[in-house]
Amino acid sequence: MQFTGGKKGVRMKETVIIEKNRVEMNEPILLVGLPGIGLIGQILCKYMVDELGGKLIAELYSPHFPHQVLMTKRGRLRLIKNKCYTIKTKKKDLLVLLGDVQAPTSEAQYEIAGMVLDFCEKNKVSEIVTIGGYRTGKLKKKKRIFGSSNNKRSIELFKKRGVIFGKSKGAIVGIAGLLPALAGLRKIPGVCLMGETHGDYVDIDSAENILSMLSEYLGFEIDLKKMRKEAKVREKIIKKIEEEIQKEMVLPQKTKDISYIR
Amino acid sequence: MQFTGGKKGVRMKETVIIEKNRVEMNEPILLVGLPGIGLIGQILCKYMVDELGGKLIAELYSPHFPHQVLMTKRGRLRLIKNKCYTIKTKKKDLLVLLGDVQAPTSEAQYEIAGMVLDFCEKNKVSEIVTIGGYRTGKLKKKKRIFGSSNNKRSIELFKKRGVIFGKSKGAIVGIAGLLPALAGLRKIPGVCLMGETHGDYVDIDSAENILSMLSEYLGFEIDLKKMRKEAKVREKIIKKIEEEIQKEMVLPQKTKDISYIR
Amino acid sequence: MQFTGGKKGVRMKETVIIEKNRVEMNEPILLVGLPGIGLIGQILCKYMVDELGGKLIAELYSPHFPHQVLMTKRGRLRLIKNKCYTIKTKKKDLLVLLGDVQAPTSEAQYEIAGMVLDFCEKNKVSEIVTIGGYRTGKLKKKKRIFGSSNNKRSIELFKKRGVIFGKSKGAIVGIAGLLPALAGLRKIPGVCLMGETHGDYVDIDSAENILSMLSEYLGFEIDLKKMRKEAKVREKIIKKIEEEIQKEMVLPQKTKDISYIR
Amino acid sequence: MQFTGGKKGVRMKETVIIEKNRVEMNEPILLVGLPGIGLIGQILCKYMVDELGGKLIAELYSPHFPHQVLMTKRGRLRLIKNKCYTIKTKKKDLLVLLGDVQAPTSEAQYEIAGMVLDFCEKNKVSEIVTIGGYRTGKLKKKKRIFGSSNNKRSIELFKKRGVIFGKSKGAIVGIAGLLPALAGLRKIPGVCLMGETHGDYVDIDSAENILSMLSEYLGFEIDLKKMRKEAKVREKIIKKIEEEIQKEMVLPQKTKDISYIR
Repeated sequence: MQFTGGKKGVRMKETVIIEKNRVEMNEPILLVGLPGIGLIGQILCKYMVDELGGKLIAELYSPHFPHQVLMTKRGRLRLIKNKCYTIKTKKKDLLVLLGDVQAPTSEAQYEIAGMVLDFCEKNKVSEIVTIGGYRTGKLKKKKRIFGSSNNKRSIELFKKRGVIFGKSKGAIVGIAGLLPALAGLRKIPGVCLMGETHGDYVDIDSAENILSMLSEYLGFEIDLKKMRKEAKVREKIIKKIEEEIQKEMVLPQKTKDISYIR
Repeated sequence: MQFTGGKKGVRMKETVIIEKNRVEMNEPILLVGLPGIGLIGQILCKYMVDELGGKLIAELYSPHFPHQVLMTKRGRLRLIKNKCYTIKTKKKDLLVLLGDVQAPTSEAQYEIAGMVLDFCEKNKVSEIVTIGGYRTGKLKKKKRIFGSSNNKRSIELFKKRGVIFGKSKGAIVGIAGLLPALAGLRKIPGVCLMGETHGDYVDIDSAENILSMLSEYLGFEIDLKKMRKEAKVREKIIKKIEEEIQKEMVLPQKTKDISYIR
Repeated sequence: MQFTGGKKGVRMKETVIIEKNRVEMNEPILLVGLPGIGLIGQILCKYMVDELGGKLIAELYSPHFPHQVLMTKRGRLRLIKNKCYTIKTKKKDLLVLLGDVQAPTSEAQYEIAGMVLDFCEKNKVSEIVTIGGYRTGKLKKKKRIFGSSNNKRSIELFKKRGVIFGKSKGAIVGIAGLLPALAGLRKIPGVCLMGETHGDYVDIDSAENILSMLSEYLGFEIDLKKMRKEAKVREKIIKKIEEEIQKEMVLPQKTKDISYIR
Repeated sequence: MQFTGGKKGVRMKETVIIEKNRVEMNEPILLVGLPGIGLIGQILCKYMVDELGGKLIAELYSPHFPHQVLMTKRGRLRLIKNKCYTIKTKKKDLLVLLGDVQAPTSEAQYEIAGMVLDFCEKNKVSEIVTIGGYRTGKLKKKKRIFGSSNNKRSIELFKKRGVIFGKSKGAIVGIAGLLPALAGLRKIPGVCLMGETHGDYVDIDSAENILSMLSEYLGFEIDLKKMRKEAKVREKIIKKIEEEIQKEMVLPQKTKDISYIR
């Protein structure tokens, strides 16, 4: 007898979003900070969630993420994932998407972006703001914010806050560009904000810069003092985890090359 | 609760064609010029669209295209795509397919070719003419046009216009060969025209050569004078964009290698 | 006429589990030992099946496994596969999963893990215990057992048996981590046990170590004396097969590179 | 309006077999000779089709084959494909599968093997005989035939004809091993015959050797005299085509690396 398995979704043949808590939201704005140049988006979003009391509402898992599982200090297994939090501020309801990784292939990036946009439509997201880094290879004191958007109105609104449009060129790699661009096909306003940064270093200044502007734009208050301290602690933790993940990623591969089948 | 998303097409799990404008056409001929050897097809098709007033009727997006988004001078985000224009000439209705890229894998090339052929059938396309380059590694003054076709009749018709059949050997890589070959399985006549070219340079002469022949074959008039000038301007723009895209493509990769998971 | 084939499952477009024998089981515990660091899990599971009279109940085939077929001494062809045995002990019913390979990509690992979990649900598996190696790069006399789990209760139970939780860091690559982590999403308790090992050698001591602990935990008796002898015999066989597989894997590739199309 | 295409099969998202002619057959035997070590199977099968008047009954196309199209001497485009012929001999009806390439990935090999087996079932194939090469790295005068089978009876029958079973070790890569092994899951008898060969050269002797044995086994007569001559002519043609395909395969790739997006 051939057993070909049960429900397709559960087998995780494609990206899934698992909803954890149900929160009433009023046309929320989605902020996205996934790993990228200078870790700017990730630092910013994690700080917002911590500082403003974000509540976890959904987790995104994908078979396109590395087939690794992280070991926590408490002895628990943690799947690699992205997470979505909700933050209720005075003026706006926010959704914040952050996580361990971005998917490594085009097909996976499109699939995940599409799944996130479906989730946005379900939750009546009114605007998507992704945060990334704009690599210059230079160390500058004053760090500009560059933007690129899928609609004219957003360009005007962010220009008023000092964001520079049309001066940055080339291509945005990954979800920070793909998500607002694909959102355009669904008529959801979207913008990608990029903090100017060297590119080889984690850039807390640039994250702070964008967060400060966003707090004005979205009308929420946030204490930026702890950002530097917390980010530095997190940076150390991240680097340590990374080193160990790298070690694990390299070594079994080596073994596998020598003796693939046992 | 598990949320596995909405409509499949919108999530772009496969190539999609989004129709923009509806134009009545009478058994149009499809011309295809996507990036390839010497940029011959792309230059030719872009010039035709500009010069003869092509009207955008459809855009093709694919999850197999690079997961990058281009930033425009106006501060807008632009997905990587192929575009289909319609041109009404005195004798024939034309469809022209051009775009930013070709897909990088076999599976994606077959999928896109199949999607384009479905679109052709829907629009009752009567003939498919793809334009590419035939690399010789030599710089020649007189540049021949080579052809290969899925049917005898097209061979005869193009031979009369000086196209050389059966002398070129080997394989045609990508959509320029795949599209007319697959069209044969659907009984749509198709031919691939290849301009002789060195291969390492953009070849405006060879594009002009083919365009001149095609204008006679298809019975439309086109002023070739501006071609050289416009192509050179475009070449510069393309090179500049390419450099910046390359920069973006290389650098995040480097970062990713060092620290895949954050 | 186009013939696009028959039943999807049979065409093996995805992983399939083929059930061989039907055995009544009472909430069995699944032990998993697939090829990995130090071959610890595989040696342990194979020895249990041999020594305790495991009965083959299912075979797992996957199109993601290498497209190679092994030749047996009897002149038979053997597909690369994983196998599932059942062992009835005094206290518990056990399922044991072992096999030739692990799948090489993330997508395949998630698919196979999902399929195995479906199979677990069908057979009312009450707990999943995967066995792997924890690479230290050092040769030690006393070899610790590290663990990571998807639930608190398992951590407590295995801590009592000397398993160390929360001290190992980094990531577990492959099915040993993925299976219990994904099991958590289905509310099936799961734990990954890792024997401390150098990493470059087959480690029978470490396998014996874990097996001894497991026999107490699960309440079955097993004679460990033959383990060393049998494992060494098997190690030789495995190495010989590996060498020949490697030879086959490398050479046709070389030929293919030189002359891809014939 | 979104246009996501028409019939799935036609879009060639997976391997398709297109039936060309309908021939009544009585439980035919399938012989398979696709490109592999020493080109033994391919030379043998092509010679049989030519010499015994094989009739083309089906073509197999796959999106996993290279996205290249061959240019013929007559100026025609030829998709890369496999072909199935039928040969009616005095005693048995034969099906012969040969072609340009084998698919490059595991998933594609399994998909194609599955599709061919569906086709076998439809045509009530009673036995599958694949022909490959067994690489020794040595130049020998007397060339043995090695075999591996999915059933005992075939082993006995071929042993009587001098085929050696159980002495060859390691793994068979590709369709020659995968097809009879997967056939076993469908209860179709299958055997892989491997001609002993150096491995770096086209081996007509070894092909002749197997063909001679097969003609006795299957009870058909074939004149082997022309084999050497025809095979040498074909070898030259193949090499020439290969060189040109290689040229095409390498060069556009180089261009693409330099300027991916235009």
